Amino acid sequence: MKLQKIQGAASIAFPRPVFIESAASIAGKKEGEGPLGSEFDMICKDPMFGTATWEAAESTLQKEAALLAIGKAGLKPEEIRMAFAGDLLAQSIASSFGIAEMGIPFYGLFGACSTMGESLSLGAMAVAAGYGEHILCATSSHFASAEKEFRYPLGYGNQRPLSATWTVTGSGACVIGQNPPSFPSKGEAMPLRQGNVCAAITEITTGKIVDYGFRDSLNMGACMAPAACDTIYQHLFDFGRAPSDYDAIVTGDLGVIGQQILLDLLSGKNIDISQVHQDCGLMIFDSNTQDTHSGGSGCGCAATVLCAHLLPKIITGDWKRILFVPTGAMLSKVSFNEGDPVAGIAHAVVIEQAVVS
Amino acid sequence: MKLQKIQGAASIAFPRPVFIESAASIAGKKEGEGPLGSEFDMICKDPMFGTATWEAAESTLQKEAALLAIGKAGLKPEEIRMAFAGDLLAQSIASSFGIAEMGIPFYGLFGACSTMGESLSLGAMAVAAGYGEHILCATSSHFASAEKEFRYPLGYGNQRPLSATWTVTGSGACVIGQNPPSFPSKGEAMPLRQGNVCAAITEITTGKIVDYGFRDSLNMGACMAPAACDTIYQHLFDFGRAPSDYDAIVTGDLGVIGQQILLDLLSGKNIDISQVHQDCGLMIFDSNTQDTHSGGSGCGCAATVLCAHLLPKIITGDWKRILFVPTGAMLSKVSFNEGDPVAGIAHAVVIEQAVVS
Repeated sequence: MKLQKIQGAASIAFPRPVFIESAASIAGKKEGEGPLGSEFDMICKDPMFGTATWEAAESTLQKEAALLAIGKAGLKPEEIRMAFAGDLLAQSIASSFGIAEMGIPFYGLFGACSTMGESLSLGAMAVAAGYGEHILCATSSHFASAEKEFRYPLGYGNQRPLSATWTVTGSGACVIGQNPPSFPSKGEAMPLRQGNVCAAITEITTGKIVDYGFRDSLNMGACMAPAACDTIYQHLFDFGRAPSDYDAIVTGDLGVIGQQILLDLLSGKNIDISQVHQDCGLMIFDSNTQDTHSGGSGCGCAATVLCAHLLPKIITGDWKRILFVPTGAMLSKVSFNEGDPVAGIAHAVVIEQAVVS
Repeated sequence: MKLQKIQGAASIAFPRPVFIESAASIAGKKEGEGPLGSEFDMICKDPMFGTATWEAAESTLQKEAALLAIGKAGLKPEEIRMAFAGDLLAQSIASSFGIAEMGIPFYGLFGACSTMGESLSLGAMAVAAGYGEHILCATSSHFASAEKEFRYPLGYGNQRPLSATWTVTGSGACVIGQNPPSFPSKGEAMPLRQGNVCAAITEITTGKIVDYGFRDSLNMGACMAPAACDTIYQHLFDFGRAPSDYDAIVTGDLGVIGQQILLDLLSGKNIDISQVHQDCGLMIFDSNTQDTHSGGSGCGCAATVLCAHLLPKIITGDWKRILFVPTGAMLSKVSFNEGDPVAGIAHAVVIEQAVVS
């Protein structure tokens, strides 16, 4: 495998690891019935999360996940130096209403379904530079608020093509910091420290917006795969690595169709990631029994799978190093209705096992 | 003046100044007819910016401002290490379509009209940490795309209360970096270096979301003033300073009503900023002759005023140190229609005259 020179570097290697102090995931009923159901911290069977609107439901979901992550890190909201969060809704209202009440200095993001990658990237940049001891990175999505935002009223019962993905109702939140987490308290679920083994962010590769001119918003996997290809290629080039240097390269929500396109695109560049590639969208639902077509999607897909499933595999020693690559599709209902293409973006984060003394 | 202890610090002082290498502003026809008309780099009389939709017009506007800033810094897009940009439209489509084509590693933001403060803050954090030599910070707004996004179709000709502000059609973009800009080339407009005098970002204060429960989206000044108060107070507290330590404290788009509320709120905390307070929304239009009611607003308001008017005053020596505090209102048409309050956020950036040898 020989990588060709590409425009500029887009990666940062942090001089010291940025520790993931805690991670929390809250998912909806359908996600709870999927293959990862037993791994989420919490499953809420009420899709309204006790509120009156889908948007308030998502805000509540994100707030609860954030509070859970802060609590699992043994911290209080006022000890969080800053928060990076975003979501899919117009003007990111799930985050602004969700995180707002905690009084944490706040940077709102929009990276579509790549948001967990964007928030972890910016959070890690801030921690590594010494701008804060503890930083919160969070995102969420909700099936019903996303359908309302981008597609049709649920009551229409519209048909979905097999290329469509199913927006995950879920939120994932991490607290990251300069120091490894302390030893788990008794009975704590999924602590991010076992003995001296922790999980840490060591490198990032910032995504570019990649537009192949696809216009089908019911085939997001195809729209996002070129961006995933671009970021993964750039990452391997910047660090001079091969796919086999990773135990897993995990994209966010490409689904069945996007995964195949990604493998094909990288194959055209003589890179074969098929042995290590996984996709959060393919892990969170069982498409045979859950009628989720191409797979799961939404900011909450990559975020909940990271917090519930990927990080524990690093802590338990199954994996030493993974490349976490959430993928986002850049569209709004206005841009779609005006006939604009759906571009993609993917932000890559290297998460490694860190053994502390 | 004695400041009371408040929850945690929210400010960063950079060990080395982050230089503003270049700044570019492009504004619409109405803005060009206002008091700052002669100071913008470019005025486009066609509100469609040569495109077919309002959204494409805004994307074009932001792209052109970004390209102009990059060019004024003597750089090419491939020399920009990363970009921080956002706008008011749902899913930030003006930025994603605008910045996309340049192939720059991209972090999408949502900070409503505080976006120029957010992008300069994150950009300065990245430059100061050595993550990039040149970083682009940009934002935009467009009167017509904002009216479509948040209010009524223009064709309705709806009446506006006197508390309403007028969204600026404009975009501002800065390139910031580790080193001072080189000497201006002949005939260059508003170079950010005169002799050995430059402008640099030295400190930031990250805003929190502040919700006083206001629900009137046609009185954004009132919705945002509490956030401006919170950030300015936090800033003065964190650095132990008085308002007189600044030649100007410049908020983004509070307008007539928001300005009075800000002065009153700070006065209630025994802080008087009336001698140094200015507001970009009050500077960009002449409300007596331009029928703009409470003033200008939109991400492009603070951004164009910064690039066209504030930075030159630092370079020419009129001002030594200012606090630039763009203010944003966190709402969407969905949150508004569901009866949610309109919270505010304000991000503060200290810009100082830097004399280089």
